[in-house]
Amino acid sequence: MTGRTARRQVTRIAIEPVQMTDRADLLAAEEPLGIRIGGQAVTLTMRTPGDDIDLTAGFLLSEGIAAGPDDIAEIRICSGEQCGHGEHDGEHESIGNIADVTLRPGAGWRAPARNFLTTSACGVCGKASIDDLRTASRYDLRTDEARVTAAVLAELPDRLRDAQRVFERTGGLHAAGLFTAGGSLLVVREDVGRHNAVDKVLGWALRGGRLPLSGCVLLVSGRASFELAQKAVMAGIPVLAAVSAPSSLAAELAAATGLTLVGFLRGRSMNVYAGAHRVIAG
Amino acid sequence: MTGRTARRQVTRIAIEPVQMTDRADLLAAEEPLGIRIGGQAVTLTMRTPGDDIDLTAGFLLSEGIAAGPDDIAEIRICSGEQCGHGEHDGEHESIGNIADVTLRPGAGWRAPARNFLTTSACGVCGKASIDDLRTASRYDLRTDEARVTAAVLAELPDRLRDAQRVFERTGGLHAAGLFTAGGSLLVVREDVGRHNAVDKVLGWALRGGRLPLSGCVLLVSGRASFELAQKAVMAGIPVLAAVSAPSSLAAELAAATGLTLVGFLRGRSMNVYAGAHRVIAG
Repeated sequence: MTGRTARRQVTRIAIEPVQMTDRADLLAAEEPLGIRIGGQAVTLTMRTPGDDIDLTAGFLLSEGIAAGPDDIAEIRICSGEQCGHGEHDGEHESIGNIADVTLRPGAGWRAPARNFLTTSACGVCGKASIDDLRTASRYDLRTDEARVTAAVLAELPDRLRDAQRVFERTGGLHAAGLFTAGGSLLVVREDVGRHNAVDKVLGWALRGGRLPLSGCVLLVSGRASFELAQKAVMAGIPVLAAVSAPSSLAAELAAATGLTLVGFLRGRSMNVYAGAHRVIAG
Repeated sequence: MTGRTARRQVTRIAIEPVQMTDRADLLAAEEPLGIRIGGQAVTLTMRTPGDDIDLTAGFLLSEGIAAGPDDIAEIRICSGEQCGHGEHDGEHESIGNIADVTLRPGAGWRAPARNFLTTSACGVCGKASIDDLRTASRYDLRTDEARVTAAVLAELPDRLRDAQRVFERTGGLHAAGLFTAGGSLLVVREDVGRHNAVDKVLGWALRGGRLPLSGCVLLVSGRASFELAQKAVMAGIPVLAAVSAPSSLAAELAAATGLTLVGFLRGRSMNVYAGAHRVIAG
């Protein structure tokens, strides 16, 4: 029902020579999770089921709604069974869950930053500066004294891949892994959505009282977008590394906040787009 | 200002032997585009600038807001200069645009489907069936008689890559290409967001009066999610092919709507997850 993989019949076709075989295949599960705060629908994310409480907590952190475990009174994952709605048919039952969030009085709940259009700096043309786009973090990365060697960084993609259990079976999941500066894996999370994988890591840290994640390296399996850089900043992570390319805005945000941004981390080399002082080459 | 690439200084680090060089690098540009309908902010997407009118039109199609060019009176891209807001400083100027949409009276404007939480089938637990998640398409793919050979499909990834001009320079862009069943490329679009690349293709087709895209194949450079399958269905595209894995919900939606879904289209082989009758192996 809420597995991380789903079995499906697939027709495998090869050419030269032509071959056509039917077989069962495992796909990465994708299902919607709705997040409500105080009963109000806030967002819907298409995610791979699992670690839904962490995912929700990470979303709250990313959006500046919760900064620590004390801001959250309760996160309740409401599925059909828990709600006692046994009358659902099979298809209905198999899709969708709701995360019901109750914040503690005084937690900084405000509309998610993504709706910047309504608060944009320029009311006429809607243009916003990078400051308007980003949610303010309580952590200043510029004072984080973490250092990491290039040799350690170069080993992280293999360690992340080794820890990706679902990807092995489906080839369909992004991963986010949190490492110490010495290269020890702290936690790995997988999801069809890269931002969800990162939120699951962030929520794990928030709920365990581990924020800020000073001295840590966050590695993502794909590209580094503005959104992922923003999440690293919100969690106080000084180094974000990506196996593929970063976007222009991710690099801009990194430079503005003191985040070290590493891209194209493959084989024995990497590119550092911001905060290169933290990476020791020798 | 609104280029598809941005130049940045990068530190390239190699180990064994250690080498550290500074150089200029091109990154895929990522900037926010706000979409307004009748003055009301509807969504904000982080996209690579370019083809913004197509992107907006494709979004309107994907969300069931516009079905053809006649539904749209005007899409105006409002940048700082066009708005005459010359007082913006450099950073402010460089980020963000607004697409202002005016629909024709009678066009089917309603809240975007993504906000399904407020209209969910089950008011208590929020569970929704696949029917609730998807926006109804006016095209029935089950009656589309398109056929495509496996040999033609196998050639498409190379053709898409050859047409990806920005990717070559940045390594940071997803691509979506629309092909005839015979393998001729009709249009290719690139973006930091996969869904944006597809919306740009869809908007190009909608604005040119080419809907439904019967007999066409849509190829995406990465994975196939529910969202991308939904977009193909909305445009009447009978075959969606992905270089990487599909998600479980993409396969479910394809099976339910008559969409042919091809995944792991690499080298000389592929997996067909739904609608295999359209793929001719020989």
